[in-house]
Amino acid sequence: MSRVLVANRGEIAVRIVRACRDAGVEAVAVYSDCDAESLHVTLADDAVRIGPAPAQDSYLNQDTLIAAAMQMECDALHPGYGFLSENAGFAARVIEAGLIWIGPSPEVIDRMGDKAQARAFAVSCGVPVVPGSDVLNDLDEARAAALKIGYPVLLKAAEGGGGKGIRLITSESELELAYESAIREAQAAFGRASIYVEKALSDVRHIEVQILGDQHGNCIHLVERDCSLQRLRQKVVEEAPAPTLSDDTRAALHAYALDLAHAMSYSSAGTVEFLVDADGGVYFIEVNARVQVEHGITEMITGVDICVEQLRSAFGAPLSIDQASVAVRGHAIEVRVNAENPDFHFLGSPGEISYCRLPAGPGVRVDTFIETGVTIHPYYDSLIAKIMCIGADRDEAIRRLTRALDEAVIDGVVTTLPVTRQLVSQSWFAEADYATHTLEKNLSTLL
Amino acid sequence: MSRVLVANRGEIAVRIVRACRDAGVEAVAVYSDCDAESLHVTLADDAVRIGPAPAQDSYLNQDTLIAAAMQMECDALHPGYGFLSENAGFAARVIEAGLIWIGPSPEVIDRMGDKAQARAFAVSCGVPVVPGSDVLNDLDEARAAALKIGYPVLLKAAEGGGGKGIRLITSESELELAYESAIREAQAAFGRASIYVEKALSDVRHIEVQILGDQHGNCIHLVERDCSLQRLRQKVVEEAPAPTLSDDTRAALHAYALDLAHAMSYSSAGTVEFLVDADGGVYFIEVNARVQVEHGITEMITGVDICVEQLRSAFGAPLSIDQASVAVRGHAIEVRVNAENPDFHFLGSPGEISYCRLPAGPGVRVDTFIETGVTIHPYYDSLIAKIMCIGADRDEAIRRLTRALDEAVIDGVVTTLPVTRQLVSQSWFAEADYATHTLEKNLSTLL
Repeated sequence: MSRVLVANRGEIAVRIVRACRDAGVEAVAVYSDCDAESLHVTLADDAVRIGPAPAQDSYLNQDTLIAAAMQMECDALHPGYGFLSENAGFAARVIEAGLIWIGPSPEVIDRMGDKAQARAFAVSCGVPVVPGSDVLNDLDEARAAALKIGYPVLLKAAEGGGGKGIRLITSESELELAYESAIREAQAAFGRASIYVEKALSDVRHIEVQILGDQHGNCIHLVERDCSLQRLRQKVVEEAPAPTLSDDTRAALHAYALDLAHAMSYSSAGTVEFLVDADGGVYFIEVNARVQVEHGITEMITGVDICVEQLRSAFGAPLSIDQASVAVRGHAIEVRVNAENPDFHFLGSPGEISYCRLPAGPGVRVDTFIETGVTIHPYYDSLIAKIMCIGADRDEAIRRLTRALDEAVIDGVVTTLPVTRQLVSQSWFAEADYATHTLEKNLSTLL
Repeated sequence: MSRVLVANRGEIAVRIVRACRDAGVEAVAVYSDCDAESLHVTLADDAVRIGPAPAQDSYLNQDTLIAAAMQMECDALHPGYGFLSENAGFAARVIEAGLIWIGPSPEVIDRMGDKAQARAFAVSCGVPVVPGSDVLNDLDEARAAALKIGYPVLLKAAEGGGGKGIRLITSESELELAYESAIREAQAAFGRASIYVEKALSDVRHIEVQILGDQHGNCIHLVERDCSLQRLRQKVVEEAPAPTLSDDTRAALHAYALDLAHAMSYSSAGTVEFLVDADGGVYFIEVNARVQVEHGITEMITGVDICVEQLRSAFGAPLSIDQASVAVRGHAIEVRVNAENPDFHFLGSPGEISYCRLPAGPGVRVDTFIETGVTIHPYYDSLIAKIMCIGADRDEAIRRLTRALDEAVIDGVVTTLPVTRQLVSQSWFAEADYATHTLEKNLSTLL
């Protein structure tokens, strides 16, 4: 029987262990010192310690992970999401060690990890991207580019990140001053004064298409999710399918995602992310070359086990379904429950869960590693549970989600449960009248 | 907002409270002294004590239940299954008290509760029943009836029950002696010496069709379940759809069930039960005029919320779906977990659950009232959890069920979990090669 090293922790490690069971392969868990008794360890067939609690000493330690896989006689390694899942160098090392990497090839991860390369690749495939210029040499070029793209525009540092070096420009009169200050900030923050202009999109939705590929050239999509409800670019609530797309836009997104998947010879699971504006304009953003946190709601509406398909494709089997047999039934919504304090800037809120009751019943799925007595450690991501509900339609899904969130009790640590209860009771949520700015704009009303 | 008295306990009370939430009506729980902190009480909007632990003093006390409903200003009463759910007199009293009875009419319950009447009704609707005679006047009539029906036959007491007064006769030479002793036993057990002959069916499957009706004349079926795996006529494992029916037999069962439903003007949820022999011969047995323990697997494959439909139809709304929109996706299997000791004649095994971990993940639904610290009382049914799994096909459902049963931990009381783990790993189960006698025949190999 094949053995898979599950190189992750928390709910996604539990999820992958279950997929291994369902696929008939053995799962070997890894754990840092503080995770020794965590659910992913308990459920796995075997487990191995990989170091102290801080992630850089355990879940991010490439040498240790590869050594663990060899020592435990594993055939393959599943990286989950986060940690090393999109590290092309690690994927290559895993393969060099003679192991199967459960994910897309290092080349695909590498290409999609560089946002400029990914954007250029999308353009070469005929997939629309957010309109933007090349790197600018002077103010005149900026002026011409902005005029061509149309105001409002953003001035952005080419090496940017974390929101640094970004200026919103609504008219040409603002451009000169903003150009000078953006140059200065980019130089200070990134050591290079290279900036470019990009269309400032407002009132957009974040829509992503789930793709699956195998090593036999088969690529399919499992329709889309709407993940617009975000705080600081972190998704909070996701739903599948997207509630407000026109049939044309939906079809276009699926076609673009499949075009990209085929052009990359994509294998394993992945997500193609887009922004969609109020007029149905579609803009490619990026590819997430791994399984997503929110994959479960797609599993619920399609009946396809995405993690089992990842295992199948990694071990060389063809996808178990073709595009024609993908059918959507119902509507599913996921709420992420984080151990964070909403009254204190959503700061992580570690501690021991003194009592925990998770919701259940028809249409409810909870992916988690918590139970009464589990300790939430400060070293890792604050996501502690994903509460997912499916209904025959969106209304039933919301009713069940409301019920499920009411049932849930997590005592001992502060969580985002109360905020999410408020969120799903808002009229703008009931009416699916939201975009990427909505949650932050309305956050104060949810606290 | 309407209020429903949930006149039950345990997992079905939890299930109905959830349905009330999802349907937007308030749920009022009832509890005996030992159930005061049970999950159905915690989850309900309100709750009322109805007496001491023994069921006859609480859950079976008609006066108290109706008084509780009036006191709590309920509009309706849901009986669940068991207890008073098929008591036509209670249903009539509930209605006389001005409450809505969430179930079929007292007349339908009454007619279906009398097995002879139900059988005659089925015959009048053109639905085949197990071949049998009228009540016999003497041995000659028995001889003639048996010859006409064909050996093997059963001699059965007309008032029978609990297996008393039943004789299996494989040839005419055995008839005379068996007739005399059956007469004597019937007289002794039931005070009347009325016996009749019925065809002894062997190698039959127990197949039941889920029906739903409303007060507007709409009746639909939600396909069938195979519930052949029984011990002492108690179902242990159920699956939907039935794994081995021919298309013709399946269609015939659905048509018969719908014919009966229409002929009864059936409203609410119900089940029409049949035996099906190896040649596809179909025999009506009875109607269960209530929600069934195993309704959840039908919900999983059809996406229809049977308990919410019960509430809708009771309050006068039409069914939310018509027959044409009923579609099956996947295959679902339920395992009942009982607090019973398999090594000691499956005797009830009450006690405190010292630790409980329930399975979860894709395709898994657990309906239960237990958690760590809950006490299983000796007064009630031993069913403590229903572990249900759905897969894209039967193989995936079995793989997920195997995984789910492996994940489950229930410490502190003896349960049937280990036996069910053995059961689902048998080759005859994998091959769906079983009939109503299979479980008892193979029980010793599962212990």
